[in-house]
Amino acid sequence: MNSDTVTYDMIRAAAGRLAGKVRRTPLLSSPFLNEIAGRQVFVKPECLQHTGSFKFRGAWSALSAMPEKQRSQGVIAFSSGNHAQGVALAARAHGVPAVIVMPTDAPRLKIDNTRALGAEVVQYDRATQDRDEIGERLAKERGLTLVKPFDSPLVVAGQGSVGLEIAAQAAEQGVSEAQVLVPCGGGGLTSGIALALAQDAPDMQVHPVEPEGFDDVRRSLESGQIEHNPSMTGSICDAIITPAPGKLTFPILRQLCGPGLIVADSECLQAMALAFLRLKIVIEPGGASALAAALFRTDLLEADTVIVVASGGNVDRELFSIALNDSPEVT
Amino acid sequence: MNSDTVTYDMIRAAAGRLAGKVRRTPLLSSPFLNEIAGRQVFVKPECLQHTGSFKFRGAWSALSAMPEKQRSQGVIAFSSGNHAQGVALAARAHGVPAVIVMPTDAPRLKIDNTRALGAEVVQYDRATQDRDEIGERLAKERGLTLVKPFDSPLVVAGQGSVGLEIAAQAAEQGVSEAQVLVPCGGGGLTSGIALALAQDAPDMQVHPVEPEGFDDVRRSLESGQIEHNPSMTGSICDAIITPAPGKLTFPILRQLCGPGLIVADSECLQAMALAFLRLKIVIEPGGASALAAALFRTDLLEADTVIVVASGGNVDRELFSIALNDSPEVT
Repeated sequence: MNSDTVTYDMIRAAAGRLAGKVRRTPLLSSPFLNEIAGRQVFVKPECLQHTGSFKFRGAWSALSAMPEKQRSQGVIAFSSGNHAQGVALAARAHGVPAVIVMPTDAPRLKIDNTRALGAEVVQYDRATQDRDEIGERLAKERGLTLVKPFDSPLVVAGQGSVGLEIAAQAAEQGVSEAQVLVPCGGGGLTSGIALALAQDAPDMQVHPVEPEGFDDVRRSLESGQIEHNPSMTGSICDAIITPAPGKLTFPILRQLCGPGLIVADSECLQAMALAFLRLKIVIEPGGASALAAALFRTDLLEADTVIVVASGGNVDRELFSIALNDSPEVT
Repeated sequence: MNSDTVTYDMIRAAAGRLAGKVRRTPLLSSPFLNEIAGRQVFVKPECLQHTGSFKFRGAWSALSAMPEKQRSQGVIAFSSGNHAQGVALAARAHGVPAVIVMPTDAPRLKIDNTRALGAEVVQYDRATQDRDEIGERLAKERGLTLVKPFDSPLVVAGQGSVGLEIAAQAAEQGVSEAQVLVPCGGGGLTSGIALALAQDAPDMQVHPVEPEGFDDVRRSLESGQIEHNPSMTGSICDAIITPAPGKLTFPILRQLCGPGLIVADSECLQAMALAFLRLKIVIEPGGASALAAALFRTDLLEADTVIVVASGGNVDRELFSIALNDSPEVT
């Protein structure tokens, strides 16, 4: 857990520990989406993963690699929700306690689910309190191991298993060249996928996707140094709003990724409606950002094939109904 | 196409023709659904299949087995919608014309999609006109081959590929004994799955599931002869409302299936909301009937494991919003 590098071999090793524990999500497509995008679009629906997001992969990777004595004392995580559920379920499956530090404004569904999966939830105020400080203090007090949401080699290695699957599933479709769009918060999923594809599908180019106004990763890639978001609230894409790219993830993103893309909240809602209509999957706003970029920001795309990750599906029914009913009819 | 039997070997042959053409849908589950059902529940989401339902399997099976000269003249199908889309896409992929005879009250989404997939749509009045007669006349006039929605050996063989996948995927989970619940209209999917499982998973028992008041199959299984529905309208489960089980399918159902189950429309809506919340998939009312039975008609179930097929996801956004917002909160 204390090493500060992550490699392709670590992703392969994580995939071995994950085998039979995570779902190999399919690669979906629809002629209707291809028509909107003007190219072939494949969607990797990690919303269908256990706990409704890719986060279960990283959590399982971290817990399964811990020495048993350390793991048995329990784990702690801080998260706006999807990482929380991933860690909670992975801890329950390993039979160890989990404490989750969550912001008070996290979607109620995510808080409820985390509790229902057996974790203890400790809440904090996103505007005034530092979640890292809270997490580290609790960890020390109770002897818990902190499972970071993205800036940890074992977590990145677990998320990277998505990239291994993309390379294999695209090859089955005869696709080796593509732009791969990934919803990006701290960069754990994006950097893991980029590392996997650099080896298994070197003609694929990964691009992080962020909401307008919360494009810390895009700006960091442009300036060459870690940039911060001015605010942590104000987008419906809660799952991918983080202060800045990670110290571990940013150098990987910088080395391997193409420029970042940005999308509006309204485009994410419309992508959610189209995923409902054409793919029969449920995506949350942040998780729909990459699909939104593939459908509505096509001027920045060059490849004949775009592969997008739909990173999570934990959305309240109220917000989902808004996405369905307020989106322009696209049939 | 003129043989009047369907065998396990025909299902295997169909699966060979379908390889690389249909999606191998995953087997999903959620600890939250298990808790409601009081047992392990697996869901086979055929809503994620091409065109949003299992029907693409049977259509591909039928078209791919036709002599090329016959196929090139085109195909015709009559359908409330899902079979229509399956045939339309399979015909387009084979580069041949398709005529689809659809009831005037079919969901607009299904009519629009069928047209968008390149088929010619001919509409008829479900209450006063006989779709079989219309279909057969058009077929004769234009030299088209009729692709029946369920009472055809090649179509049943294609649908049976779902059963092969269920047996293999359940075995991967260590499951060999289960009750398998299948939304049932004319019985093509149910009989195909039953034939596949009789060979590959003989300790699984298949049960057809129908809406209350449209339980022709359940009553037919009870009486031992083909019974008819008194009406063809009055349920939101449009995809599985048919006049009676087929001449081909009923003897198979009678030989291989356990008693039929029935569910209320309101239970289907609630199952749709839970599938949204817990599995992140979109199911249409008829397609949700088997999940509804697994969750809410548990007094009729005995096995520790229930596997349900979610047969389709082609639902208008208006009806889906009703399912989300009118269902009791189950968290």
